[in-house]
Amino acid sequence: MRTLKDLGERKAIEIILELLDSMPNMPIPFGDDVSAIQIDEKLIIVKVDMLVGKTDVPPGMSLRQAARKAIVMNVSDFAAKGAKPVAALVSLGLPSDFTEEEVRQIGLGLNDGAREYEIYVIGGDTNESSDLIIDCALIGFCKKGSLMRRSGARPGDIVAVTGYFGRTSSGLKILLNGLSPPEELRQPLVESVLMPKARLREGLALAEIGAVTSSIDSSDGLAWSLHELSKASRVGFMIENVPVAPEVQVFAEKYALDPVDLSLYGGEEYELVVTVKPELWDRAREVLSGFKTPLIRIGKVIEEEEIKVRINGETKVVEGRGWEHFRSVA
Amino acid sequence: MRTLKDLGERKAIEIILELLDSMPNMPIPFGDDVSAIQIDEKLIIVKVDMLVGKTDVPPGMSLRQAARKAIVMNVSDFAAKGAKPVAALVSLGLPSDFTEEEVRQIGLGLNDGAREYEIYVIGGDTNESSDLIIDCALIGFCKKGSLMRRSGARPGDIVAVTGYFGRTSSGLKILLNGLSPPEELRQPLVESVLMPKARLREGLALAEIGAVTSSIDSSDGLAWSLHELSKASRVGFMIENVPVAPEVQVFAEKYALDPVDLSLYGGEEYELVVTVKPELWDRAREVLSGFKTPLIRIGKVIEEEEIKVRINGETKVVEGRGWEHFRSVA
Repeated sequence: MRTLKDLGERKAIEIILELLDSMPNMPIPFGDDVSAIQIDEKLIIVKVDMLVGKTDVPPGMSLRQAARKAIVMNVSDFAAKGAKPVAALVSLGLPSDFTEEEVRQIGLGLNDGAREYEIYVIGGDTNESSDLIIDCALIGFCKKGSLMRRSGARPGDIVAVTGYFGRTSSGLKILLNGLSPPEELRQPLVESVLMPKARLREGLALAEIGAVTSSIDSSDGLAWSLHELSKASRVGFMIENVPVAPEVQVFAEKYALDPVDLSLYGGEEYELVVTVKPELWDRAREVLSGFKTPLIRIGKVIEEEEIKVRINGETKVVEGRGWEHFRSVA
Repeated sequence: MRTLKDLGERKAIEIILELLDSMPNMPIPFGDDVSAIQIDEKLIIVKVDMLVGKTDVPPGMSLRQAARKAIVMNVSDFAAKGAKPVAALVSLGLPSDFTEEEVRQIGLGLNDGAREYEIYVIGGDTNESSDLIIDCALIGFCKKGSLMRRSGARPGDIVAVTGYFGRTSSGLKILLNGLSPPEELRQPLVESVLMPKARLREGLALAEIGAVTSSIDSSDGLAWSLHELSKASRVGFMIENVPVAPEVQVFAEKYALDPVDLSLYGGEEYELVVTVKPELWDRAREVLSGFKTPLIRIGKVIEEEEIKVRINGETKVVEGRGWEHFRSVA
């Protein structure tokens, strides 16, 4: 019989989902980035995301950074939905040989992550376990009408992202394969892995102006995110401009890697990937420029349910490859 | 430097709590059984509780039962607070050699637990980990005025519980030490471990009539629960009647164990331990009798901050010993 190793985590989720009775009138269906309960005209938004030391904490990341990241990766999903997180609950599984100082570093990191996004940790649980486990549950709110779902993209909409890609996959290669690029290259690439930022203000602002027809974060890689939006919205994308970060261009040349691959098939990157109504495009850019955040047009929504990328006049298919943890880039 | 093994899980929680900024005007302080966010006159109640295979799943418990228990132990905390759970999010950590059928059993158990208490699982996360981890986050509601806190017991109140004790500690001894009592004794004792029940209807009904001045569940053992209520309410208890289950009396005699110890210092038992206003005592009993659940008077609240038990005319101190997982009874 097949084991989890063969099945993969996503298939395991499917198996379980089939066995669960569904809540009647779920405001957000299974499979989107967050879950919700409706209360009057508000939605209570909830989300859990588990960080496991051996798969989510690369060499070079401190415990404090890992704990901070456990919060940030959850906040990123709220950002993508235009929901404001308010409080976090944190369940910890800690190895029995963890020292008092290591426990302290985790507490500091949790508070770092929470306070950066004006959240408070209001409860939790601690257990002994073989791996380091930091499981964060985030609770927040969203006005019923402003939630940005994965579904909703329409042909003609503009596909856009809130930043450049490829830094984390390059940074992980540095950390995992012990590469030594010059410091000015190393620093931003490694920093993107160790201190990820969630685009919370940007997501809330985009939800507020109603410019976005579908939205997801890019935690599983840009290609994967596009595939998820495509599936949920039943549309396709023509990508005309892969948003490769300038440092990634340099890094790729130095190590004979493909900068487009690094940008499309990375992961643990927390930009927003959105489709925008053309008539609100200028407004959306303007709003994000208030945060000094670019809104980069990378292509357009097409009717045909496939994802293509045009590079140097050549059209290729963007694969549905994702990212099931940092080990996949090693 | 001390490690988690020396510190214990409760001390680890204290270390982390000290490092966290507290949310202003928290409706429920840190240290109670659940956390809350206020929204208008309602409280949103949230709670996470992690089940770790190697410490929370005794031999003889199936995966389906373990997954069900992960939900039930969370529901029990809601019961103790008089809060109605609505939805659960479940984060799973699964060993990579888990089979498809094992994943299915977990899905079935989660649905069992949820549907027994009219909850729906509305989201979650799945990861690969060394241990089996089932971390459940529960979300629900409570009217602001009816929340039953740990604090609030006053001298003169009646101390009561919703059932008899000692079954789970006896059942665990059977499972862990391979004891073989007669089937009619074995069955109820082992069943109490494998298929725990949360007193949700009872907790909600008690909250509704406003009879309870403080409340906790007995998941860490009756003695521990009394100590927690005592600390939070700054009162003491005189226990006059330790509610030993009849099967436990027989089991203790057979194996030369102390039935009072089995009942006071067990754990993983999900009865409610409450203090009741004397003038509402009859009403409280009547309401619970509607569910065929006893409300057993075990003593009274006293001013002096200590917990004493009177057995056969002799008064002893109830120790603050708890339960930090099933291995402690082996």
